[in-house]
Amino acid sequence: MKRARPVRRALLSVSDKSGILEFAQSLVQRGVELLATSGTASLLNTARLPVTEVSDYTGFPEIMGGRVKTLHPKVHGGIMGRREMDDVVMREHHIAPIDMVVVNFYPFSATVQRRECSREEAVNNIDIGGIAMVRAAAKNFDVVTVIDSADYPIVLAEMDLYCGSLSLETRFNLAIKAFEHTAAYDSEIANYFGSQVPTYHGDAHQPAGLFPRTLNLNFIKKQDMRYGENSHQLAAFYTDSETREASVATARQLQGKALSYNNIADTDAALECVKTFTEATCVIVKHANPCGVATHDSQMVAYDHAYQTDPASSFGGIIAFNRVLDADTANAIVRRQFVEVVIAPDINNDALALLAGKQNVRVLVYGSWQQQVPGLDFKRVNGGLLVQERDVAIVALKNLEVVTQRQPTKSEMRDAIFCWKVVKFVKSNGIVYSREQRTIGIGAGQMSRIDSANIAGMKAANAGLDVKGAAMASDAFFPFRDSVDAAGMLGVRCVIQPGGSIRDHEVISAANEHDIAMIFTHIRHFRH
Amino acid sequence: MKRARPVRRALLSVSDKSGILEFAQSLVQRGVELLATSGTASLLNTARLPVTEVSDYTGFPEIMGGRVKTLHPKVHGGIMGRREMDDVVMREHHIAPIDMVVVNFYPFSATVQRRECSREEAVNNIDIGGIAMVRAAAKNFDVVTVIDSADYPIVLAEMDLYCGSLSLETRFNLAIKAFEHTAAYDSEIANYFGSQVPTYHGDAHQPAGLFPRTLNLNFIKKQDMRYGENSHQLAAFYTDSETREASVATARQLQGKALSYNNIADTDAALECVKTFTEATCVIVKHANPCGVATHDSQMVAYDHAYQTDPASSFGGIIAFNRVLDADTANAIVRRQFVEVVIAPDINNDALALLAGKQNVRVLVYGSWQQQVPGLDFKRVNGGLLVQERDVAIVALKNLEVVTQRQPTKSEMRDAIFCWKVVKFVKSNGIVYSREQRTIGIGAGQMSRIDSANIAGMKAANAGLDVKGAAMASDAFFPFRDSVDAAGMLGVRCVIQPGGSIRDHEVISAANEHDIAMIFTHIRHFRH
Repeated sequence: MKRARPVRRALLSVSDKSGILEFAQSLVQRGVELLATSGTASLLNTARLPVTEVSDYTGFPEIMGGRVKTLHPKVHGGIMGRREMDDVVMREHHIAPIDMVVVNFYPFSATVQRRECSREEAVNNIDIGGIAMVRAAAKNFDVVTVIDSADYPIVLAEMDLYCGSLSLETRFNLAIKAFEHTAAYDSEIANYFGSQVPTYHGDAHQPAGLFPRTLNLNFIKKQDMRYGENSHQLAAFYTDSETREASVATARQLQGKALSYNNIADTDAALECVKTFTEATCVIVKHANPCGVATHDSQMVAYDHAYQTDPASSFGGIIAFNRVLDADTANAIVRRQFVEVVIAPDINNDALALLAGKQNVRVLVYGSWQQQVPGLDFKRVNGGLLVQERDVAIVALKNLEVVTQRQPTKSEMRDAIFCWKVVKFVKSNGIVYSREQRTIGIGAGQMSRIDSANIAGMKAANAGLDVKGAAMASDAFFPFRDSVDAAGMLGVRCVIQPGGSIRDHEVISAANEHDIAMIFTHIRHFRH
Repeated sequence: MKRARPVRRALLSVSDKSGILEFAQSLVQRGVELLATSGTASLLNTARLPVTEVSDYTGFPEIMGGRVKTLHPKVHGGIMGRREMDDVVMREHHIAPIDMVVVNFYPFSATVQRRECSREEAVNNIDIGGIAMVRAAAKNFDVVTVIDSADYPIVLAEMDLYCGSLSLETRFNLAIKAFEHTAAYDSEIANYFGSQVPTYHGDAHQPAGLFPRTLNLNFIKKQDMRYGENSHQLAAFYTDSETREASVATARQLQGKALSYNNIADTDAALECVKTFTEATCVIVKHANPCGVATHDSQMVAYDHAYQTDPASSFGGIIAFNRVLDADTANAIVRRQFVEVVIAPDINNDALALLAGKQNVRVLVYGSWQQQVPGLDFKRVNGGLLVQERDVAIVALKNLEVVTQRQPTKSEMRDAIFCWKVVKFVKSNGIVYSREQRTIGIGAGQMSRIDSANIAGMKAANAGLDVKGAAMASDAFFPFRDSVDAAGMLGVRCVIQPGGSIRDHEVISAANEHDIAMIFTHIRHFRH
């Protein structure tokens, strides 16, 4: 492993000063000479550490409120000078080699996230000098670039291991980290200011606050996968740089093989669906669709009801809970079915012991969660990216509108709300039949709504479940009365749907003729 | 509109010198004093333009092969000095205000895209000084930041309009462009080097070449949309920064309302599907699934056959062609059905005139195209991003394996290949029946394969199309023989599927019993 010469001189210039004093102390103990910009130097002086101010080294004062302090050839020559190759020119110009750069930046991101942040404040928090030094250091793998206080101990440990120097591997690693950081930093700047100007193309009538002119995204790799949706596609899983909510990205895996691409996609669907229920609920997902959902005080009954909706599809499914998984339920699962993933907020020890008997089952815990938070949703198309707000809308009870002669009974209303939550996660066109807080039949992913209605009925019949007395949810309005007629023939008593079709009056008439209570949500939940 | 003082001094330092001579000349004609780094200055000298070399201005030579030339307080003070506020300190240190920075960067991206690029070459093409100047200038809206030669005429035109200065709007705009550029530049660097190191978390057994440790993506906004998948979700459409292939992102709209979120998603599916056919083909898509596909020498017949697969779903669909749209076909479409989008490589004038009668129809042309090129596909999950290679696999004829006693006839084989191309674009589980180069029934998006097979049969019956003699395609293997039995009962003569189930022998037996010819592709096409 190629090692550079030992670190003899370090330049320190940090905005976030946590841990810097101890780190500087440790460097001094290892014989490292310190250069620092004024703010950092003041702090080191309080601990009586020997330090040269950069302005004393360059012979040029810090000016313009600190905007110009390190942008000097004696600093940048010291950082970028290639060891040996540039030794002569460095001596000629009294440039001292700088072997380590310890820098972090003005907090641009934190500043602009404050609601009251002015444009001037934002601009003042754009780091120039620090970024220039870090990029210069990262270009020269002979130099150690430290941008993260979490790396201080690693750097010291390696210096101790290698007589004051660091391995090429670590220097390279830290250099890449530096460029990852500057990429993300300038992405934030571009996104922030880019949302204040019109788009380059098209008829931009308004500078849209949510969607900057260029969208610059940064993700952190969590896992390489053996393959993607299919075995001929390579794949990896990345996470957002900031965690906002308990999710498949933050869940902790307790046992089982690594998650596959399809596992992650399906676990996301199952988890996000189950999180929308407040009562104890089980969601089983297969091929991106819920194939069974049930709510019950007994977790095992909830699982059993979800499973009964579609036993064939549940085989090899993803099972998600919103309560600590108990032993009875775990036992019921492993005895009955092949399962790819089980995910719950937590898993009790007895349940875990039972699952341990099936080491291939991937078991995940996701901890506590609150309401879903807003964020961006992406859909890839060839050559581009569709970007939209996540669909976190939940219809308020007071906005439900009964449009039929008959009002829903209390239990019909409960069932309607239950299957409305489920249909939000069914691929469009989606139709869900449910009764007594359990799905009876799910019609997913059809190009015509009546087909989804028929499939939901067909699925119920296949499972031996009676639709009579059930509620029906439709993710979008009914373009014709046919689906309501089909539901009415099966004995559906209550329908929940957005409304808004030009044929609503026909649809409502159909409901009245079948003595169905119909509820409008005025919110659509297409999901493709 | 707030204007800065006129541009009196500009610093030029360009790696890509196209247009710089004329631009410099125009600046001189407008009384602007020029500073330039040595390479740029040499070029200007050949045209006898008055120019001061930066090293003469700073009194510090360019050293280290040009690595350090502008990183000097007299340069950066000149750029960052706030007009009026910093005037005194600037005079004190003989810092001349620099009102315009014209810089472009070492071509990092082009360098690393060359196959034989070494790490050293890559590193040498990381720009440090240029980026530092551009970021400094972009932080100071008083200064004009020019990073793109395409902006030279705009800058000059505005100087002429405003007595040598530029509007705040334009300066702000150029500053944002600068940060967009540095964000993308460092993204490239982070992605390139980040693919050479292991991941931060997890069991990274290998540094994966395709998937860097952090993924840094940059998109350009093409269009704000009224809403996303649903009206309560804001949305925008972004395109890749580099165009690689004719796509929905590059298509040109000739008439109609702006494309909606769902229009773009569905047009992408229709277009990518139709592009995989070499013969004249029509694809109709609804709710992300093909609802009818047909190939025929007559374009109008192709459209008619596609439509006949599922007239109800075709209502409000997206119709894509891979041949210039002719008048007969356009006429047939507008007379018969409501259509959201028509897209074709080109549209002849008569067809265009016919479509003009329906101004609400969105009409797009996408030009010529070649084979689909590799690229990355993304799937959003809460808190993360699944990233995989696009599914551009096409099974080679020589890799098709007939596994049954009976070999397919020539026409059965043609039908099998036809519906194999279609099923690749059907949401999983997908089953397609087709005969004579037209779809007969499409079973999409089910959680169990037998359901998709049954739905395909049901759809054919609804459309009054006979499955007898048809081919059947399944996007993944059959877990059981039931779907083949169902197909056999309907008179299917040939089945194409990946194979690979542990029950393949049962599935093949079923085919043999029904005298079906079965073809294995050994490639799966899940698409969720």
